[in-house]
Amino acid sequence: MPIDEALHRVLTRDYPDNTSTNQSILDRHGHDESYHAPASPDLVIFPRSNEEVQDIVRRCAEHNTPIIPFGVGTSLEGNVAALKGGVCFDMGLMNRVLEINDADLDVRVEAGVTRLQLERELKSTGLFFPVDPGADATLGGMTATRASGTNAVRYGTMRENVLGLSVVLADGTLIKTGGRARKSAAGYDLTRLFCGSEGTLGVITEIQLRCFGLPAAHSAGVCSFGDLQGAVQAVIVIIQAGIPVARIELLDDLQMEAVNKFSSLDYPVSPTLFFEFHGTQASVVEQSEIVAEIVKEHGGAEFKWSTKQEEQNALWQARHDAYNAARALRPGSGGWPTDVCVPISRLTECILATKEDVDESGILAPLVGHVGDGNFHLLMLVATDNEKEMAVARQVNDRLVKRAIAMGGTSTGEHGIGYGKLPYMELEHGEGVAVMHRIKQALDPNDIMNPGKVLP
Amino acid sequence: MPIDEALHRVLTRDYPDNTSTNQSILDRHGHDESYHAPASPDLVIFPRSNEEVQDIVRRCAEHNTPIIPFGVGTSLEGNVAALKGGVCFDMGLMNRVLEINDADLDVRVEAGVTRLQLERELKSTGLFFPVDPGADATLGGMTATRASGTNAVRYGTMRENVLGLSVVLADGTLIKTGGRARKSAAGYDLTRLFCGSEGTLGVITEIQLRCFGLPAAHSAGVCSFGDLQGAVQAVIVIIQAGIPVARIELLDDLQMEAVNKFSSLDYPVSPTLFFEFHGTQASVVEQSEIVAEIVKEHGGAEFKWSTKQEEQNALWQARHDAYNAARALRPGSGGWPTDVCVPISRLTECILATKEDVDESGILAPLVGHVGDGNFHLLMLVATDNEKEMAVARQVNDRLVKRAIAMGGTSTGEHGIGYGKLPYMELEHGEGVAVMHRIKQALDPNDIMNPGKVLP
Repeated sequence: MPIDEALHRVLTRDYPDNTSTNQSILDRHGHDESYHAPASPDLVIFPRSNEEVQDIVRRCAEHNTPIIPFGVGTSLEGNVAALKGGVCFDMGLMNRVLEINDADLDVRVEAGVTRLQLERELKSTGLFFPVDPGADATLGGMTATRASGTNAVRYGTMRENVLGLSVVLADGTLIKTGGRARKSAAGYDLTRLFCGSEGTLGVITEIQLRCFGLPAAHSAGVCSFGDLQGAVQAVIVIIQAGIPVARIELLDDLQMEAVNKFSSLDYPVSPTLFFEFHGTQASVVEQSEIVAEIVKEHGGAEFKWSTKQEEQNALWQARHDAYNAARALRPGSGGWPTDVCVPISRLTECILATKEDVDESGILAPLVGHVGDGNFHLLMLVATDNEKEMAVARQVNDRLVKRAIAMGGTSTGEHGIGYGKLPYMELEHGEGVAVMHRIKQALDPNDIMNPGKVLP
Repeated sequence: MPIDEALHRVLTRDYPDNTSTNQSILDRHGHDESYHAPASPDLVIFPRSNEEVQDIVRRCAEHNTPIIPFGVGTSLEGNVAALKGGVCFDMGLMNRVLEINDADLDVRVEAGVTRLQLERELKSTGLFFPVDPGADATLGGMTATRASGTNAVRYGTMRENVLGLSVVLADGTLIKTGGRARKSAAGYDLTRLFCGSEGTLGVITEIQLRCFGLPAAHSAGVCSFGDLQGAVQAVIVIIQAGIPVARIELLDDLQMEAVNKFSSLDYPVSPTLFFEFHGTQASVVEQSEIVAEIVKEHGGAEFKWSTKQEEQNALWQARHDAYNAARALRPGSGGWPTDVCVPISRLTECILATKEDVDESGILAPLVGHVGDGNFHLLMLVATDNEKEMAVARQVNDRLVKRAIAMGGTSTGEHGIGYGKLPYMELEHGEGVAVMHRIKQALDPNDIMNPGKVLP
């Protein structure tokens, strides 16, 4: 066992009920939902409080042992793999909603609270938390990877919706960043520094989140387009017009074909936009009508929309089924999900070039986009044990990321770097990477916090 | 002259046309708009390009000479005072709007562009940039102090609206942070680290800003309240209801009295809310009507509102005149502006306690608040040469800041720390201050970047 025997002994002695070295537990904590090679930690510990996190971090630090914070393992770039062994901090027992402040529209949660758990606990309050990555991730993990999702075009990502944090640093110090004020000009923005740091600067233990009042009304709509240009151009015009769309999702023709097969639907097999509008009864109707006009001008087919919940569900069915439908296109294959984000004016060009590349590669890869933000995902369906196929996928991914960066975009809109996208950090950030290294060195001089991630 | 003679010689030799040691120029650069003691730099230089900034920073670094970035000197906490002498970088010649990307709703500006200049240059594009501190500050200064203003409740502060930066570090390295993508999960958020760092980590030279499409329609409204509780409670309900108000401003009774005197108006002398709504024609009417209902329920007097531009201007006249009207309450006095931000549920309590404290102190201090964010300003009208009066003002400010922090708020919502609010950093951030110091040390080991600011 690679971790120091003395450390192993004290941890299992002092935390007998919440420590595990069971191999299947170790293995479950060494991988996420991606195709990246897993790497199991040597020990998994389930801290129950800030004090326990501090104590365990201090002991790991004494033994210079890697620390890998873990939520539920739904990351997509190998973010939780214990590349150098060490102790995995599974935050699952720190799963309390600590405060719900109705009047201030904010909540404080422990890092192990999942987004659906939070949704349930907020149900009776009239509040909701808008950030919704596909998986039922923990708020700690979402903060650490700067997650977003379908609502980001209107409500922002974790970057905009985390008000403050409790973080245990590499030396065991507990700090509180930010606060409950909506804005502050007091000192360096440590909250934003830890948000997106993927466990490489400290263990996030608590998060103060900004919430929103549930909108009085919703409407939803769907519209298919003859070509991608029309769909994306419509999105640009809608955003420019300041329509406060809650969601605009694009599914490409292959994804629509997948959905038709999966759910026995008969959507046109062409690029399709899914919309959701939030507001008052009158304003969601107005937004829907304005959007209907705009999509028509851009070659959209009939725009179906509704303010009735049941009809909205039916309209969005295809979007909700997208992931499973895509996986079903090639049963037994592994999924290689990748995401980039570009300025919206380059989105058509980026998607078209990517689809052409995918077609030439012979890989099956449906595409779904949070297009209001210029963010899209490619789900490459590959036989992960077929080295040749994986090499082709690697090249498609490589060209996709380089294309996005060349267009002024980013190597990842919402999945994070993990170790999967390390090769692109220099290309994207240039000399900025050296600054990140200096910050890492200042806060974690012995490189024990999730080593091998984020920084090349 | 305290700066090294050799440095002085090479700078005046190599930058003969854009360097000054004229005493009145030096003095103009040693103070901002606050009451804080000024401190003139030894030399002012007006760089014209990134390369010049890099070159001059390198030379200053060689001579271990302080560097103080300067916009137009409208900060309020002594942020530009050259406390240890050195070279002031007046960014006024780097005043070009470099790119306007209509389709992406973003612009790139040099740090010396002022917000009104940007407004003019955007006039023909259908875009606007929403962050509006009172002064016509530079975008560089606004970024450095994490400024906000009246629109922040809807559009966010500089924190939310800066997409990326060019920054020259203390060793002369130029880095580019962020990018043009709306979101990114790629590495540490350096953009947010420099935003709000007040020149202590580097010289910001260019800023990529997020803009918005001009709303199709505006409406504005005004409503006075019998008491402060009713006014603030109405604001809470409006925010909770998700009404996307563009602005909600509170003026207290003293401020309303000031406005009446200054502009010969006859508003009720009581707490008054000013509203602005952005959206489609129908939605601004709807928002106005919903707000009318809510303010009525909370004891508001008749809610006057209009969608006509001229009437809107008249309704908002009092708010626009607020600063000058307040100053006119005590001609010849200096202004001691201070601001804090608290969770909105504590706003009434915080304002009432503050007003009581002010009344007891005998100081004249009108109060204006960006209340949708829980942020308010007190403008203490004091004889700055009267030591006794200043001591009283210092104590009022001290109690105000401590009160705000005790309520989970912050020592400054939008003015920054400068050196005026240094004494409160430990109280607000605790161990977090040590983390800030480590970051400062990592990026500016010789403490040449705006020394004496932000960090105690």
